[in-house]
Amino acid sequence: MPAREVLVPLRWSDMDAYGHVNNVQYVRLMEDARILGFRFRSGETTSDAPGRTGTIVARNEVEYLAPLEYQYEPVTVRFWASRLSGASFDLGYEIRGRAGDAPGGGATLRPDAEGWVVYARAESTIVLVDLGTGRPRRMTPQEKTMLEDMSGPPVELRRRQREQATG
Amino acid sequence: MPAREVLVPLRWSDMDAYGHVNNVQYVRLMEDARILGFRFRSGETTSDAPGRTGTIVARNEVEYLAPLEYQYEPVTVRFWASRLSGASFDLGYEIRGRAGDAPGGGATLRPDAEGWVVYARAESTIVLVDLGTGRPRRMTPQEKTMLEDMSGPPVELRRRQREQATG
Amino acid sequence: MPAREVLVPLRWSDMDAYGHVNNVQYVRLMEDARILGFRFRSGETTSDAPGRTGTIVARNEVEYLAPLEYQYEPVTVRFWASRLSGASFDLGYEIRGRAGDAPGGGATLRPDAEGWVVYARAESTIVLVDLGTGRPRRMTPQEKTMLEDMSGPPVELRRRQREQATG
Amino acid sequence: MPAREVLVPLRWSDMDAYGHVNNVQYVRLMEDARILGFRFRSGETTSDAPGRTGTIVARNEVEYLAPLEYQYEPVTVRFWASRLSGASFDLGYEIRGRAGDAPGGGATLRPDAEGWVVYARAESTIVLVDLGTGRPRRMTPQEKTMLEDMSGPPVELRRRQREQATG
Repeated sequence: MPAREVLVPLRWSDMDAYGHVNNVQYVRLMEDARILGFRFRSGETTSDAPGRTGTIVARNEVEYLAPLEYQYEPVTVRFWASRLSGASFDLGYEIRGRAGDAPGGGATLRPDAEGWVVYARAESTIVLVDLGTGRPRRMTPQEKTMLEDMSGPPVELRRRQREQATG
Repeated sequence: MPAREVLVPLRWSDMDAYGHVNNVQYVRLMEDARILGFRFRSGETTSDAPGRTGTIVARNEVEYLAPLEYQYEPVTVRFWASRLSGASFDLGYEIRGRAGDAPGGGATLRPDAEGWVVYARAESTIVLVDLGTGRPRRMTPQEKTMLEDMSGPPVELRRRQREQATG
Repeated sequence: MPAREVLVPLRWSDMDAYGHVNNVQYVRLMEDARILGFRFRSGETTSDAPGRTGTIVARNEVEYLAPLEYQYEPVTVRFWASRLSGASFDLGYEIRGRAGDAPGGGATLRPDAEGWVVYARAESTIVLVDLGTGRPRRMTPQEKTMLEDMSGPPVELRRRQREQATG
Repeated sequence: MPAREVLVPLRWSDMDAYGHVNNVQYVRLMEDARILGFRFRSGETTSDAPGRTGTIVARNEVEYLAPLEYQYEPVTVRFWASRLSGASFDLGYEIRGRAGDAPGGGATLRPDAEGWVVYARAESTIVLVDLGTGRPRRMTPQEKTMLEDMSGPPVELRRRQREQATG
């Protein structure tokens, strides 16, 4: 699955009084991943201000899997198109980092065999809008192609697994 | 349903380059609503630092229903316990305001008969933790009573309605 | 001196990993004080979006005098026009709160006889701009009157006192 | 002058409703520059949490020289020790970027011969504290050496030039 992988640097101020990256800031990391990730592959130049992408976020869902402390190295945000329709699409996200990049070498974390820790999984629904009217609009062929090239499965949210188990 | 209603002031900086309150900041408003709302009813005094509540946010889900611009008047965040278990609970949220409080008198908004606009509906899963060990812990009887007193139905997320329709 | 006094609520997230309101957020409180304070007296209605004030901040200077922890009660930001010229002006600020509003009753703070603690003193230089061209512009008569009505002495910055002592 | 030069990435959310990096966020960039810059040269390892540096910011002064829009490329923050005493020191900062990195190629900016634009100059006063007691403490020999190795002249603030002209 040709997902985008973006390195998103943390800021020390992402931490709250608990000394962990605050849950709200994970959603900020998702925003920065979109800004950086859609630019690097869609051939935008810096003369296209990232604010003018003609999309709005209609939904965010985030599941927090491990505590993240400020680290000097960026976290890796992988995201892909997990649903496509005529006027909107979903993005699935995985926010992860290397245990060795965490303060204290991530002694309290449980990394996988390659040393990666998944800090969060998330999903956003993005609606395409006409920036003039603010109204929803159809996806352009270029947008459709770009998203199909990065399409993948639904993100593995525990909420879904729970609902399937109980449903 | 005895939900909590908290007035949460906006900050001008909650707006992004689009001139709307950024999607990430809605999650911040939810945090402030919890900080303020749990204090008003749980009998905390200001000598209990709000940072030491012994809870962590395990999940956030937000659906954005109308664009929110900075307004001088606070928004109203209504929240209630939409699920209760031994070591965690869900909160449902409704973020709304009066159309008349929006810039331009909210001319582009569609308020209800009482003049209210619902800007977002959301849900959080909160896990109770022992602040010493960081491990999940059982709910205290006081916490259970406090949450039962503010319990209500699942929040009406469009995502749920969609899943029921298709499922 | 008819300074403006504005109650500016804190957000729990204003605190950093040290458990104090972060030094950067004091500058945010100054911004909110301007947004709220200029509105209350200048007769703006909420239909004037606060973002369209036709001013830009050309300079900020902040001296931090006491550690501020999150408190439920707003802090009081007093500000006044400490310098006036044709196309710019300075604002002096004092950010203070009641020791009794601080967590733990402010046991470690040194309040004055009335129980107030001054957390910071600050100064901003504001330049008037034409929002069309982005160019500096002359002050309007209404702006001049409004600022003269709230004019006061230079803010008592320790930096000034130090320079006078050494100069 | 062996100043530190740190590349500090912007976030799209650093922009406010004006579409420029908000004046408050420049102070955030200064914080990140310190976190990154002191780490790279002081031999800290990531096992030293950056929050535990035993310093507090006692003063910030920022002069804004050119409007900064979000750009994909980081800005360059140069900073150096502009004053040293037994228990505190000043840092001078210059925040700059290449005109070509700005949206639209920085057509409205006035870069120098090498294509650089200075967005802001700033100064902070940092006080050394004992993290146990919160009290000021003497500089350690290692800290003194590190700061002397990066010492330079006072930052060229227009405020100083103005005061010299009038004083």
